[in-house]
Amino acid sequence: MSQASLLERLSAIVGPDKVSVASAVLESHSTDKWYASHPPDVVVFAESTSDVSAVMKFASEHRIPVTTRGAGYGYVGGCVPLHGGIVLSTARMNRILGIHPEDGVAIVQPGVITGDLQKAANDMGWEYPPDPASLKDCSIGGNIATNAGGPRCLKYGVTRSYVLGLEVVLANGDVLRTGGRLHKNKTGFDLIGAFTGSEGLLGVVTEATLRIIPKPASRAMLAAIFPDFPMAAAAVQAILNSGHLPSALEITDTFTLAAARRKLGPDVFPEGNAHLIVEIDGRPAAVLSELEELHALLLSLGATFIERAPDEASCERIWKLRREFSFSLRDTGLTKLNEDIVVPRSKLVELVNFARGLEAETGIAVACFGHAGDGNIHTNLMVADYQDPVIRTKADAALDLLFKWVLEQGGAITGEHGVGIAKKPWIRQALGETSMATHLALKKALDPQGILNPGKFLDF
Amino acid sequence: MSQASLLERLSAIVGPDKVSVASAVLESHSTDKWYASHPPDVVVFAESTSDVSAVMKFASEHRIPVTTRGAGYGYVGGCVPLHGGIVLSTARMNRILGIHPEDGVAIVQPGVITGDLQKAANDMGWEYPPDPASLKDCSIGGNIATNAGGPRCLKYGVTRSYVLGLEVVLANGDVLRTGGRLHKNKTGFDLIGAFTGSEGLLGVVTEATLRIIPKPASRAMLAAIFPDFPMAAAAVQAILNSGHLPSALEITDTFTLAAARRKLGPDVFPEGNAHLIVEIDGRPAAVLSELEELHALLLSLGATFIERAPDEASCERIWKLRREFSFSLRDTGLTKLNEDIVVPRSKLVELVNFARGLEAETGIAVACFGHAGDGNIHTNLMVADYQDPVIRTKADAALDLLFKWVLEQGGAITGEHGVGIAKKPWIRQALGETSMATHLALKKALDPQGILNPGKFLDF
Repeated sequence: MSQASLLERLSAIVGPDKVSVASAVLESHSTDKWYASHPPDVVVFAESTSDVSAVMKFASEHRIPVTTRGAGYGYVGGCVPLHGGIVLSTARMNRILGIHPEDGVAIVQPGVITGDLQKAANDMGWEYPPDPASLKDCSIGGNIATNAGGPRCLKYGVTRSYVLGLEVVLANGDVLRTGGRLHKNKTGFDLIGAFTGSEGLLGVVTEATLRIIPKPASRAMLAAIFPDFPMAAAAVQAILNSGHLPSALEITDTFTLAAARRKLGPDVFPEGNAHLIVEIDGRPAAVLSELEELHALLLSLGATFIERAPDEASCERIWKLRREFSFSLRDTGLTKLNEDIVVPRSKLVELVNFARGLEAETGIAVACFGHAGDGNIHTNLMVADYQDPVIRTKADAALDLLFKWVLEQGGAITGEHGVGIAKKPWIRQALGETSMATHLALKKALDPQGILNPGKFLDF
Repeated sequence: MSQASLLERLSAIVGPDKVSVASAVLESHSTDKWYASHPPDVVVFAESTSDVSAVMKFASEHRIPVTTRGAGYGYVGGCVPLHGGIVLSTARMNRILGIHPEDGVAIVQPGVITGDLQKAANDMGWEYPPDPASLKDCSIGGNIATNAGGPRCLKYGVTRSYVLGLEVVLANGDVLRTGGRLHKNKTGFDLIGAFTGSEGLLGVVTEATLRIIPKPASRAMLAAIFPDFPMAAAAVQAILNSGHLPSALEITDTFTLAAARRKLGPDVFPEGNAHLIVEIDGRPAAVLSELEELHALLLSLGATFIERAPDEASCERIWKLRREFSFSLRDTGLTKLNEDIVVPRSKLVELVNFARGLEAETGIAVACFGHAGDGNIHTNLMVADYQDPVIRTKADAALDLLFKWVLEQGGAITGEHGVGIAKKPWIRQALGETSMATHLALKKALDPQGILNPGKFLDF
């Protein structure tokens, strides 16, 4: 269908103020935070479930590709409309419909910014725990599409653990409601699981009922320096083996620490080649006594310096410093290919050793830091310009070595960001033939025409 | 295929010592803990994944029904082979293949008894949190099939939150492996979710990699008596609204308490018409200080008596008493139809009021107790003999009223036990047409011949 016809037909269906073919709009809806770009033919700004349903009915009648877009903060090109067609934006569906402590739920539209929901819940003394790094910018719809994680998932689990109910518009426009404001539900299959993490390939989420929990009254942190990375990794094991379940356990390797010292000045961290953050939360008295226990434990494990953050403000200072790690890598002037790989937790040292070897072999610097408790270490390949075809070929060859090694260790090529376009070349290798066939069977069952987000990891 | 042929063919495939048509074996594999019974033609005791795969290949070639059976402790008839054919028992696949604190996982075969896994993990200082009431008898395979819950799910989540990897034999005999010893994984769709809770309708789980967590060093409980049920329900809200997240919050209504007094003697509980258990866990100092806070809170909310259990042994005493609630209902001489319904947490009082009305209207006594924090209240209809057709018709009419009301409240007809045969008459009403159609599409995608557990809630 021509762009003019699309504009006309869709304007008739949802109203002209919700449809755009303006070149600036098409361009800003062509990419996310990754390195791929393809323009849609038209962008629809849905404002209601019935808008979404009407668009899907129209698209399925005419077999037009539909790529759903939340805030556009994905890291893998997941919402890039590779086959053109319609970008279906949920950005205007951004209302918090209700926060109900009495039922332990928040009900939201998909365009709600994750940080806004967190703040609204906090203001009532409650908490929505999932905390992806981009929480100030990303939307709940995108979080559900990628089953987003974050540091606190060690204790609190990923997005899936907080989705109690969904309204989903199916490929044919039918509206499915599954789950509700219920903390247990065994009525049939886990349809919530089927859609959570499905990266826009199976349906369009138009409303979510999310679990909220009583906000822990207090939190505290320790930030420790260790002489070397293996000692910090051993501390991760020792902490968990001593019966502690921190809300976050974040590790940083030598390379990243050196970059941070270059950016922030040599004195911001005392000497030492690895950095470990331990965050705990709970009742105030509990947190303070656990902080003492952990402090003593870290010292006994060879930490050479420990900063204590016994309250909210000092915790925030440490998290701010932690965020500087990312910025200081950016300040190298290089492009950071942030690979959210996962290894079994016992293999953190092997991962960093492999990264050093990869660096030596390819000449590409590799910086590792991230969620140590989950084995989910962001492994950053630092390259000059990923858009340059020569550099890209070299970088992809290095990624190939990385992912091959990760899979050999029983690891995963993505723990938080999803497959999108970035990981598509490795998905068959990661899943195996039986799993690929099962994925295809599910895709065909729910989107028989293949109109939802085509061109991603399931082509048919 | 005749029984003799089945015996011969299956014996040739997996070995004669793994196949039985003995009438005692067929009979003991005809039922679970619910009120339905149908014999299989043959029972296969699989001992390995390749046994299961070979049986499924054979069954799919000949379109023979296969009903998978774990320990047979289900409450809804889920493993009753309604269409005969093969009962595929995983009881012999009962090995704990490894407990790996360094990766935070346990790897088990499906026939492992849940309590055995808990004990093995505890012995290493680790914990597998899901705690269905039947944990001494039920198997992990059955827990996965029903996405089993338990009291501690309030804080720790249901079985799904602990399944990190699965090996599943598909309807055609193919062996799917998904996930692994990884705490985050975004590689493709949530296939683990697709199989967890699918009640044997989509595949046969042959191995599971389960998340374990550091065992909380300490736990403690308070058991409080309140003058009436609404006050106990209000306490549930007040506890959570004060920032506490107990590991369990169990409520008991007047009827159940009266039955317990009749069984255990009038003095075992001080006067009062509702009972509330609050369990907390964590670091020892933390638990003791939180216990003080909760004690003061319960007193301020009108508790007339509070028993303190500050250590493991005294907690166990209170749980033992709690288990007596079930037994004392049994001692009424009546059959207990235990309905694991769920309501939004704010509707506990409405539920109990409805139960009183139902009792008045139908003459069937109704006892409510259970997981107040989850809104998952076991609602027990006390009938003379459910096998008697006259009584059954009357009981089913009462269940019909109960489920209708629960659904009108936005509740669920099952929170822990599953659909099986027991809830099949209400499943369409509970799910709605779009969800039923989606369920059928998934079923057809993964079991196109409909040979897995036929006769349950998805017939085609």
